[in-house]
Amino acid sequence: MISTKQTDRIIHALNAFHIELPSWGFANTGTRFGKFLQPAAATSTAEKFADAGQVHRVTGVCPTIALHVLWDLPKGVGDCAEVQALAAEHGLRPGSINPNVFQDQNYKYGSLGNPDAAIRQEALDHILASVEIQKRLGSRDLSLWFADGSNYPGTQNIRHRRRWFEEGLKATHAALAEGQRMMVEYKPFEPAFYHTDIADWGMALALSQAAGPKAKVLVDTGHHYQAQNIEQIVAWLLDTDDDLTMGSIDPYQVFRIFHEIAHFEWETGQRADIAYMIDQSHNLKGKIEAMIQTVTTAMELFAKAAMVDHEKLAGYQASCALVDAETCLKDAFSNDVRPVIREWAISKGLPADAMDAFRQSGYLEKITAERGARNMSAISSYA
Amino acid sequence: MISTKQTDRIIHALNAFHIELPSWGFANTGTRFGKFLQPAAATSTAEKFADAGQVHRVTGVCPTIALHVLWDLPKGVGDCAEVQALAAEHGLRPGSINPNVFQDQNYKYGSLGNPDAAIRQEALDHILASVEIQKRLGSRDLSLWFADGSNYPGTQNIRHRRRWFEEGLKATHAALAEGQRMMVEYKPFEPAFYHTDIADWGMALALSQAAGPKAKVLVDTGHHYQAQNIEQIVAWLLDTDDDLTMGSIDPYQVFRIFHEIAHFEWETGQRADIAYMIDQSHNLKGKIEAMIQTVTTAMELFAKAAMVDHEKLAGYQASCALVDAETCLKDAFSNDVRPVIREWAISKGLPADAMDAFRQSGYLEKITAERGARNMSAISSYA
Amino acid sequence: MISTKQTDRIIHALNAFHIELPSWGFANTGTRFGKFLQPAAATSTAEKFADAGQVHRVTGVCPTIALHVLWDLPKGVGDCAEVQALAAEHGLRPGSINPNVFQDQNYKYGSLGNPDAAIRQEALDHILASVEIQKRLGSRDLSLWFADGSNYPGTQNIRHRRRWFEEGLKATHAALAEGQRMMVEYKPFEPAFYHTDIADWGMALALSQAAGPKAKVLVDTGHHYQAQNIEQIVAWLLDTDDDLTMGSIDPYQVFRIFHEIAHFEWETGQRADIAYMIDQSHNLKGKIEAMIQTVTTAMELFAKAAMVDHEKLAGYQASCALVDAETCLKDAFSNDVRPVIREWAISKGLPADAMDAFRQSGYLEKITAERGARNMSAISSYA
Amino acid sequence: MISTKQTDRIIHALNAFHIELPSWGFANTGTRFGKFLQPAAATSTAEKFADAGQVHRVTGVCPTIALHVLWDLPKGVGDCAEVQALAAEHGLRPGSINPNVFQDQNYKYGSLGNPDAAIRQEALDHILASVEIQKRLGSRDLSLWFADGSNYPGTQNIRHRRRWFEEGLKATHAALAEGQRMMVEYKPFEPAFYHTDIADWGMALALSQAAGPKAKVLVDTGHHYQAQNIEQIVAWLLDTDDDLTMGSIDPYQVFRIFHEIAHFEWETGQRADIAYMIDQSHNLKGKIEAMIQTVTTAMELFAKAAMVDHEKLAGYQASCALVDAETCLKDAFSNDVRPVIREWAISKGLPADAMDAFRQSGYLEKITAERGARNMSAISSYA
Repeated sequence: MISTKQTDRIIHALNAFHIELPSWGFANTGTRFGKFLQPAAATSTAEKFADAGQVHRVTGVCPTIALHVLWDLPKGVGDCAEVQALAAEHGLRPGSINPNVFQDQNYKYGSLGNPDAAIRQEALDHILASVEIQKRLGSRDLSLWFADGSNYPGTQNIRHRRRWFEEGLKATHAALAEGQRMMVEYKPFEPAFYHTDIADWGMALALSQAAGPKAKVLVDTGHHYQAQNIEQIVAWLLDTDDDLTMGSIDPYQVFRIFHEIAHFEWETGQRADIAYMIDQSHNLKGKIEAMIQTVTTAMELFAKAAMVDHEKLAGYQASCALVDAETCLKDAFSNDVRPVIREWAISKGLPADAMDAFRQSGYLEKITAERGARNMSAISSYA
Repeated sequence: MISTKQTDRIIHALNAFHIELPSWGFANTGTRFGKFLQPAAATSTAEKFADAGQVHRVTGVCPTIALHVLWDLPKGVGDCAEVQALAAEHGLRPGSINPNVFQDQNYKYGSLGNPDAAIRQEALDHILASVEIQKRLGSRDLSLWFADGSNYPGTQNIRHRRRWFEEGLKATHAALAEGQRMMVEYKPFEPAFYHTDIADWGMALALSQAAGPKAKVLVDTGHHYQAQNIEQIVAWLLDTDDDLTMGSIDPYQVFRIFHEIAHFEWETGQRADIAYMIDQSHNLKGKIEAMIQTVTTAMELFAKAAMVDHEKLAGYQASCALVDAETCLKDAFSNDVRPVIREWAISKGLPADAMDAFRQSGYLEKITAERGARNMSAISSYA
Repeated sequence: MISTKQTDRIIHALNAFHIELPSWGFANTGTRFGKFLQPAAATSTAEKFADAGQVHRVTGVCPTIALHVLWDLPKGVGDCAEVQALAAEHGLRPGSINPNVFQDQNYKYGSLGNPDAAIRQEALDHILASVEIQKRLGSRDLSLWFADGSNYPGTQNIRHRRRWFEEGLKATHAALAEGQRMMVEYKPFEPAFYHTDIADWGMALALSQAAGPKAKVLVDTGHHYQAQNIEQIVAWLLDTDDDLTMGSIDPYQVFRIFHEIAHFEWETGQRADIAYMIDQSHNLKGKIEAMIQTVTTAMELFAKAAMVDHEKLAGYQASCALVDAETCLKDAFSNDVRPVIREWAISKGLPADAMDAFRQSGYLEKITAERGARNMSAISSYA
Repeated sequence: MISTKQTDRIIHALNAFHIELPSWGFANTGTRFGKFLQPAAATSTAEKFADAGQVHRVTGVCPTIALHVLWDLPKGVGDCAEVQALAAEHGLRPGSINPNVFQDQNYKYGSLGNPDAAIRQEALDHILASVEIQKRLGSRDLSLWFADGSNYPGTQNIRHRRRWFEEGLKATHAALAEGQRMMVEYKPFEPAFYHTDIADWGMALALSQAAGPKAKVLVDTGHHYQAQNIEQIVAWLLDTDDDLTMGSIDPYQVFRIFHEIAHFEWETGQRADIAYMIDQSHNLKGKIEAMIQTVTTAMELFAKAAMVDHEKLAGYQASCALVDAETCLKDAFSNDVRPVIREWAISKGLPADAMDAFRQSGYLEKITAERGARNMSAISSYA
């Protein structure tokens, strides 16, 4: 079913496809009801780099690792040398830098949106320190997610908080060097129940525009209202000259998102400068296997999106040939692209099947033995 | 429980409270499964003005009536003289002007977002004709809702449509006279299933900003995702110097929205220039009674919002006294404001109880007799 | 990628696959804002049979047509002879019988749940007349959907209405002959805003159980809350010895539903006696083409579900091998089954590509010419 | 506005109103991103009883405290004597008994629904031990919430798990003594992402009916799909002779739920035997103050529901007088019942204002001093 021409397009697409791994995706995490511990989970920065290196080794598309300042660089810039050494050791580069302004007890009522000016300053200081790390590590992106919000109507002044965010993000923008960016993430719920300060793409966009041209909206596919059309948001951001970053992966919807991006590139003849990132930390699946599975799925969906016949589709759209347009899109999705991906992998000197290669490497057994006893002694409880 | 000072605040608030009635709220409407016909429903523009006049007569807060160009002014500007005469006769003023670019068969694939340039022009022409009506009638607001969207992934180019909307709205803005405004409405779903071209407040805001300073976002409380925090959107729009208009009424949530507006006014010392509008057409309740019930509910909620102790609340918010802040807001809501509203009405020469006054007027019996036979002969079917 | 053994399983599955067409899916329908008219839409029962016959002719899996009593058999049993003649003429059999107790003005406040006993009786009489039609036509299933509900809190006694439904459905059950069934549909919203009398599967199941063993729950995939797990409901109904019927098709979710059914059959060694039905009426796509597209998609998803390796999956589930279990399911979905379906079609003497065959038949051009002028003169308006 | 007759009804209603406090509502809890620690939070069972005693002392309607077996009775029946002594000391009685089959590492893939028979047995043993505690403490209700579910399609056999739940609940039922009950809770999401084994009221009801007559459905108002009509579920459960328990409190919706219950009682002349329970643990508000605020809100809403004029409402419902029916219900809600509640409290020797009384008692300052240093040294992290 897949023609030579289509195969070429897939190969071409895969050659340009990168997706960033999150360091925290290799650590034990959980729900508010507790953590189920995995013997092979990573606890040190070194272990996270080692695990991420395994994923890149078998998939070939994950050259960067997102870092969490509080967990991976607890000593701040003082940890940069070690991080760079680890990156070199495992064939990776430092990716986006993620400040943490939600875990400290001071952030109970918010960080950049806190009514207390001293705490706002504390949050800003941590963010600016993260920008410094970003510079030292040569990272392009600062990734900003805020847990700020409120749980009950009337308890916070939404407008004041909006302005404090505007101020904090402007100050952050001012500290960025040339070629660096700050990504502003949005999320309509969790952990706050009543209001989240940056709840949707409209709020993230308004704050980014106020901050300056290096500020961009970060789209996490899991951070939307039910029934919200995410690919439409992506299309709007693409069309208004704004970049975006893509977070966690929903297997069936993300194809349509990849398609919007591919169609934009075809139509404009320019490359969409998009940083794809995974933000997941599966609490039941094995960490590394879960990551390989996600990367593999993303590759499949990206390859399918590369198969859409854009010329035909554009024609059907222009003439409102609904049945043909929909079929054109679904036909690309119906293809089985796994053989082409296998072929591509072999041509790159990568394993034909990433999961198999990982399982046969003995790595999991090794780290399970090494880390097991330590990991299983931790404890966590809801109340 | 209600102090003299609080009573004064309620009276003061009610004196400034106006809410616009929709002409189409007095006509027979239905669901896609059919219409249930009411013998007393209005079918002509004259009947709609007469019915709206009754609502204003008993409530005293509805001096304007929103007009639908296609249904109320089928001859366009040629109908303006008659509309003005009707308004004068019934003690009303023409309110917002609503073009209709969704009913004609040509709009099957959209209006301002249609891939066919000729149909986009047709839609724009109708909107520009509506602006002309707006000028003749001295209406301040043009109210723009679009049914545009698509039902299946891949069938339309979302980015092209966005740009066509930007063009159409700019052209509309260019035609407005001094002192006129255009309100851009958003809605995430219905009638389109897959994507709506102006789906959320962020899209409406971006298009309004592109159109020009006379373009404002119209917030209809019924046009949001489940669990979306509408009062937050209102607070953001208030804070970014944008006006808004409020649509249909959800009795328990709208209090919080009124509160955000009242708190903004208290804090800034300036009046929020907000046009409140009802956009409802109950298909089971009696039309006029439903309208009176909605207006009465809106007055109660507005009066409750006027009772919030802003000084106290601001202090609680600043110190993160969550329990006190929430209680402060809920206390205002817990009050029974009906006696004060009754008192206010009597002082204005209005009936103490609007619904009673309407029921005792004999108006409903009169129009039922006059309109009944004609109305009950219509027919409608799903398939 | 697809082995001979897998091909055999697909062929075997397709041989047993039937999906029912709805007569009303060929007629003009719309939204509450109006109908967009299609020149080729069917208006008579004869035209609906003719169109459905076309779909069966090119797909080979649609031997039955669901009938709507009010629209297709307006004279009740008096129309049965003509319907049987039409069925014979177009190579079809009458499928499920659908009473209509929502369109008549009397049903404004409900049908079997109406507070007025006379209207409840009227609804029951229509349903019993439908059972009589069912017997005459040899239809197995009576398909019951109710628009009953209320729009405002407090306006109806929910418990009384529940009991009236129980009574009405018991009376319906008593009228069924041996081998006949009644399907009870649920829907959480639309057209009612506040409460729907049969809102979810739990209510439908309770009413079915009260009615008797010939009453079954009808699952329409479009009638659920956002984020509700439909395949879980299907699994529960399968496991509690209840049949089900499947309605409208969501391309990406329905695979999981088909899989639950296939896995049940594999595990129990017994056939799940399920009637698949389409309940759609696209208002923008061409009617017949939309139906062919839906049937084709259903066949693809059904074929993919037939490829799941149940033995392996069961083992993975038992040992909580999450990554392997999920991959096992997704692998089946990743296959491109279109070549096998084409092969199957040819072996049955059917066209290799159903849509192509229909388009080349000239049928659409013929009916467009015949029906066009009549169809485009109708009119519909929201208010 | 409130007549003497209405006052009597409120007093009568409040006299019968009890709402149970959860022991875990006084402990530090959090979100998956961490816990914000409160210096005054309770950590021992003794402290939880002391705090709950304060809430009952100032509100007068909270005579029982729900107990969590794992946290409050870690030694099982061996702790019963101490618990009874604590209850006596603080003027409370042990309330519902809550087993915990979600925290232990063994429950990673489920408890009663786990594919591993040994873990199912372990969960059952803990539940049966909880029944033994229930007997020793004279508690009427065993409260069963299960975190069981799965995170990815295909990873678990939904039907097997259903049957294992049926078996486990039957075994639990068999162990209950005369006069004891088991409450089966449902929740459509969290902590599982893909499927929850007892996801909705229909599943909880089916499992309860299979278990036996002492099994009842537990309705937690927070455990529903968005837009689901909870009062309808309550009405159905009331009407099908099943009891229910009410969980967490949503201030504006719960009035309608209380109304459905009150209307049932008025109509049938029999008391609805309902156990009201709070299941909340605010992570930002002060624990005890949050509890007092919730109890006070519940009392207000219960009192408002007692003011509905059932005779009138029933008449309006029967005649489909929609406007009057809705107004009848909203009128009751519009009343300010706080003065009557104050009056009632004084007549019972309780403080007129519960929150004031608590704040003036000095209790909070005392426990903050006693517990503060210990509490603030704990730590929690997401990854």
